Amino acid sequence: MKSKNFFMQEAIKEAEKAKEKDEVPVGCVIVKNDKIISRAHNLTIRTNDPTAHAEILAIKKAAKKTNNYRLTNCDMYVTIEPCPMCAGALIWARIDRVFYGACDKKAGACGSVINITNNNKFNHTIKIESGILQKRCSKLIKNFFKEKRK
Amino acid sequence: MKSKNFFMQEAIKEAEKAKEKDEVPVGCVIVKNDKIISRAHNLTIRTNDPTAHAEILAIKKAAKKTNNYRLTNCDMYVTIEPCPMCAGALIWARIDRVFYGACDKKAGACGSVINITNNNKFNHTIKIESGILQKRCSKLIKNFFKEKRK
Repeated sequence: MKSKNFFMQEAIKEAEKAKEKDEVPVGCVIVKNDKIISRAHNLTIRTNDPTAHAEILAIKKAAKKTNNYRLTNCDMYVTIEPCPMCAGALIWARIDRVFYGACDKKAGACGSVINITNNNKFNHTIKIESGILQKRCSKLIKNFFKEKRK
Repeated sequence: MKSKNFFMQEAIKEAEKAKEKDEVPVGCVIVKNDKIISRAHNLTIRTNDPTAHAEILAIKKAAKKTNNYRLTNCDMYVTIEPCPMCAGALIWARIDRVFYGACDKKAGACGSVINITNNNKFNHTIKIESGILQKRCSKLIKNFFKEKRK
């Protein structure tokens, strides 16, 4: 079994690809049976698409690949806490668990601002674990915006 | 100026297209300066994509068309209350107003289950008006599931 840190490292590689493209550095991977079945990074600016967050792109790829729009028994590793849009998509996709690096105090929907992923009013809840390689995930995004402000 | 009912009628036409394809009948249009700039219907099953809700598809099309991932001064008319994923996408797209037909007691994120569109913790709020051609919008979806259960 590969470690949580291993998969988060892969998510960070994706975030770094976003950074190279001058996109907000968020990356993720979707894991099934200890294998990465899909990976993506944020591409909102380049694709001119407000929905092109890493998580949405990875979900779409994984659904195509598994030929199933329900990603049962799949986990997501993502560098930053998912926003309401992505958390909602993760519920529709029936993702099992989400492991994220850094909290998003402005838009986090797994507990930081609101809690969509663990709300019994919805027909699916997602197990959440935060803080995986947190410092690296957080630094990536903080440095990006620091550079931007210069 | 065209009426709200006019635009909702167009959203209903989209929902009917979804129904013909055996997809959950939800449809929407995005309106700017009294003109429809994008229209879409739910396509989750056919495209094998849990994110292919009418609202997400319409946002993507409108962003491509206006060459701007922010849909400022745009309104959405949608037959059913947006879910968390779509409500989140509408915030990222900076949509001005959402007019919807019927409430969604199971997944509505504009007040029915949770309220994402009017939450001051997020950096954008959306004006909501519900009940436009409500009976027709509601009947479309209720009849669809009634047929399914047979």
